[in-house]
Amino acid sequence: MQDNLLENLRKIGYLGPAGTFTQQAARVLFPESALLPISDIYNIFYAVSCKTCDVGIVPIENSTEGPVNATLDALLKTENLVITGSVILPISHTLMGSDNITTNAEVEKILAHPQALAQCREYIRCNYPMALLMPCASNGEAAAKVASASGEAWAAIGPAAAAKEYGLRIWAEDIQDSFLNSTSFIQIEHKKEGEAVIPSAGCCTSIAFSTKNSPGALYRMLGIFENYSINMTKILSRPMPERPGEYIFFTDIEGYQPEKAKKALKQIEDEATMYRFLGSYSVIKKKG
Amino acid sequence: MQDNLLENLRKIGYLGPAGTFTQQAARVLFPESALLPISDIYNIFYAVSCKTCDVGIVPIENSTEGPVNATLDALLKTENLVITGSVILPISHTLMGSDNITTNAEVEKILAHPQALAQCREYIRCNYPMALLMPCASNGEAAAKVASASGEAWAAIGPAAAAKEYGLRIWAEDIQDSFLNSTSFIQIEHKKEGEAVIPSAGCCTSIAFSTKNSPGALYRMLGIFENYSINMTKILSRPMPERPGEYIFFTDIEGYQPEKAKKALKQIEDEATMYRFLGSYSVIKKKG
Repeated sequence: MQDNLLENLRKIGYLGPAGTFTQQAARVLFPESALLPISDIYNIFYAVSCKTCDVGIVPIENSTEGPVNATLDALLKTENLVITGSVILPISHTLMGSDNITTNAEVEKILAHPQALAQCREYIRCNYPMALLMPCASNGEAAAKVASASGEAWAAIGPAAAAKEYGLRIWAEDIQDSFLNSTSFIQIEHKKEGEAVIPSAGCCTSIAFSTKNSPGALYRMLGIFENYSINMTKILSRPMPERPGEYIFFTDIEGYQPEKAKKALKQIEDEATMYRFLGSYSVIKKKG
Repeated sequence: MQDNLLENLRKIGYLGPAGTFTQQAARVLFPESALLPISDIYNIFYAVSCKTCDVGIVPIENSTEGPVNATLDALLKTENLVITGSVILPISHTLMGSDNITTNAEVEKILAHPQALAQCREYIRCNYPMALLMPCASNGEAAAKVASASGEAWAAIGPAAAAKEYGLRIWAEDIQDSFLNSTSFIQIEHKKEGEAVIPSAGCCTSIAFSTKNSPGALYRMLGIFENYSINMTKILSRPMPERPGEYIFFTDIEGYQPEKAKKALKQIEDEATMYRFLGSYSVIKKKG
């Protein structure tokens, strides 16, 4: 009971404003806590890092558009933080606007986060080929802008919740190009003092590493997982800005055998030119 | 001589408007040809595909911000096109605006392509923490918008050439966060009829493949290159929208041993769930 009360008092920062998919992810992970919208992924990491927030919730990967670069970069820059949980949400996009517009041809501008515009590329191309696309910092911001320009023939793309939040009318639902569209969100927190950062049983473990720029270097790294029969469920590559031709690999492994995973990660750490343990945590999968 | 004349008559589509880094790349690859600005990466592939243009020039990867997703996706969708050349340009960003503004505090909005904003994130954070960031379709478009709003306290980020193109004043140069910032551009053309698509000696060869979602599948694929002593110089992963948990890998290999490469690629093709030969071409590296 007391644990629940303490949990409810924690401050949860999420990529806002209200009406974003990240807010929905935060609500799944923390049904009772106070949610604080923060407008930029870097500022969320900063807020958790300097303890303005206890927890941060950010998107990390979309099934159609791939990794969220700002999240991967921020993870590497904040060594005092770890991933402590994750939720995968089905992403269904809605087209919303004011009541003034009656035909497609009238829509002048479509506003949304660049990932949302990309996830609905074919729909827009077929239905609104003449509309100007306006990328926004978040889908919540896009809906807010459309709501505050009610005289204009503008539309926003985002979650249906944003239409409710900003008093917009829903014109079309499920407009994303892929019906298996989903996004993974992570929760980040301070590392607990004195607590070892090791793979936990039944959890997903995330690491980042880079290899020497030499033939077969990545092959030998993956061979370490193979030797210990560890299943790698994700691999993302990011270029290393200061070392052209070298990459950082973000990898998730299954945690059914934590002792084996510990040994494998020790070997990876020894061989890598850079290594970070990013967290070991359970993943909630929501159905559409 | 006649070859040169024919070369000069080819129509080259590039990611425009004028004043983009892609225009500079097109000029390096085709110093004499007519250049046609096209406002969207997909439209460039479409223009080459339906022969409105002979060649298309698009960015494919930046050393700081990673792959250009629209280019990777378009490459997979246009099976009749191949990569026929590449140039790597050092990318130096310039802050530009009108003469009306005299102090940093006055800058209300900074406009640029999202990649340019990301490449100058730290500079903006330190020098213009209050400025609103406005993502644009290209840096050329950003400069054009700032030029057409000369009464406003707006600034654009992009190549110095854009300042000249649109009559803007340069306020600061070399503002990118990484001084090793570079972007790879590719040229795309129709596959020549009857011509085999095979690795050429001394060239970079690009392929895309996906593996079964099973433990060690990627490891076994990379093992094929290892067996033939082939050096993989790049690996990028993109999620497969219709198959959650599966990835498409974009890989470049060195072409010093075309016969070995041919055998290795045949094995990759046999094992992969999806395989595409994207081209074998020489790469020009420009120094900063």
